Amino acid sequence: MGLELYLDLLSQPCRSIYIFARTNNIPFEFKHVELFKDSVLGKKPAAAAASGAERPRTGPSNSEGAGKISLLKKVPALKDGDFTLAECTAILLYLSRKYNTPDHWYPSDIKKRAQVDEYLSWHHANIRANAPKTMWIKVLIPLFTGQPLPSEKLQEVMEGLSASLKQFEERFLQDKAFIIGSEISLADLVAIVELMQPVGVGCDIFEDRPRLMEWRKRVEEAVGKELFFQAHEMILNIKELSNIQIDPQLKEHLAPVLMKMLK
Amino acid sequence: MGLELYLDLLSQPCRSIYIFARTNNIPFEFKHVELFKDSVLGKKPAAAAASGAERPRTGPSNSEGAGKISLLKKVPALKDGDFTLAECTAILLYLSRKYNTPDHWYPSDIKKRAQVDEYLSWHHANIRANAPKTMWIKVLIPLFTGQPLPSEKLQEVMEGLSASLKQFEERFLQDKAFIIGSEISLADLVAIVELMQPVGVGCDIFEDRPRLMEWRKRVEEAVGKELFFQAHEMILNIKELSNIQIDPQLKEHLAPVLMKMLK
Repeated sequence: MGLELYLDLLSQPCRSIYIFARTNNIPFEFKHVELFKDSVLGKKPAAAAASGAERPRTGPSNSEGAGKISLLKKVPALKDGDFTLAECTAILLYLSRKYNTPDHWYPSDIKKRAQVDEYLSWHHANIRANAPKTMWIKVLIPLFTGQPLPSEKLQEVMEGLSASLKQFEERFLQDKAFIIGSEISLADLVAIVELMQPVGVGCDIFEDRPRLMEWRKRVEEAVGKELFFQAHEMILNIKELSNIQIDPQLKEHLAPVLMKMLK
Repeated sequence: MGLELYLDLLSQPCRSIYIFARTNNIPFEFKHVELFKDSVLGKKPAAAAASGAERPRTGPSNSEGAGKISLLKKVPALKDGDFTLAECTAILLYLSRKYNTPDHWYPSDIKKRAQVDEYLSWHHANIRANAPKTMWIKVLIPLFTGQPLPSEKLQEVMEGLSASLKQFEERFLQDKAFIIGSEISLADLVAIVELMQPVGVGCDIFEDRPRLMEWRKRVEEAVGKELFFQAHEMILNIKELSNIQIDPQLKEHLAPVLMKMLK
């Protein structure tokens, strides 16, 4: 049994893994999970609902025993024989090691590698904590709660995101082509998928940020434009999400959490 | 010029780096930073204040040019010649590679290594997001704002932490001695320092969790009890923090953020 990846391309971490595997010609079986349909929320630990800031990542319910796949019952998840793995960064690093991908993704140079690690860690409480909120505010909260969009909440979220982007440009990107220098690394990939989330919901954060836009173009070129846009097709057509039938149990569990976010 | 580590042992990430360096006999110069005194908040990017969930990590202001040390103007920070590095995980991994520490800390076995990565990533939005809040609620918010302790807020925080601890025990620790098996790894170290934060402020999360308590004892033994308690001396005597003279600028900037947390 070969490598299986359980993904929903609406999820940013899933997109980074999909792009990484495809651009490096890693053979895998795409196990499609639909986050808002295939909920296994009944088995979901309370912590996920309580964590608030994170988007809910429910587990795969693919009929081929996918419920057992993810240690943490969420996507992305990897299954390689009897080995299972959750968490985007862990999966990307595992793939880079197992398939011996080109050095620039996670350089063997100890200092460059440390810079990738530094970004991947900073990412969690900054870009990752702020960018996805735009989707919550603009699409998911109205969809789940039936409440209108609170504009001051969006403004608050955009301010947090702007501050993170300022740090991203000034401290990480600087005047380099990519985060760690002249070549793309896992850091750029993890960053770009997260920053496309606001774009999908109509908050084009690249518009007034020429340096960021140039970097985005370089990332697109590096992984291949066709692959890049294929991976982002769903998020760039997010309006269709409003037609999605949401798992009623998911709706019931998440509505109170989302209402709290609106406060 | 040798390795310099800029640390405040009140900060959990700083403690993990301190313990790791000391238990592995890595020679370094301890540059003591006092988070609540040596504030360089004037130069602090807005994002840090806006991020909310994270404890504020202000930058080192050590007179020997420490302001330049941390890329992100916060502790922990590493300086190795002209190379500087922020972020706890990045620093731990850099040290493990540069000083070729024993394999068990970050195993060369590709699957065990992936399990360490998996924990380190999960940690951010779970243990790291929940455990430090106990210190905010019980000690820092009253200290900074002069407001009494809101008991329902503490209860909310403890519920979030309990949910994370349940996952930690059931999904990561299971019936193993350490997170990835029979030997200690970076995952255990990063976890334990975070879980000692509630203990310091009187929320002994180990009391009713025998499996967690047994794991804690094994971690203490693995790094050496004397070193473990030396590193945790300050946090276990946190009451003395109320005598600390807080940087007025830090107080002024943080009070509104903290008041918001009380809502």
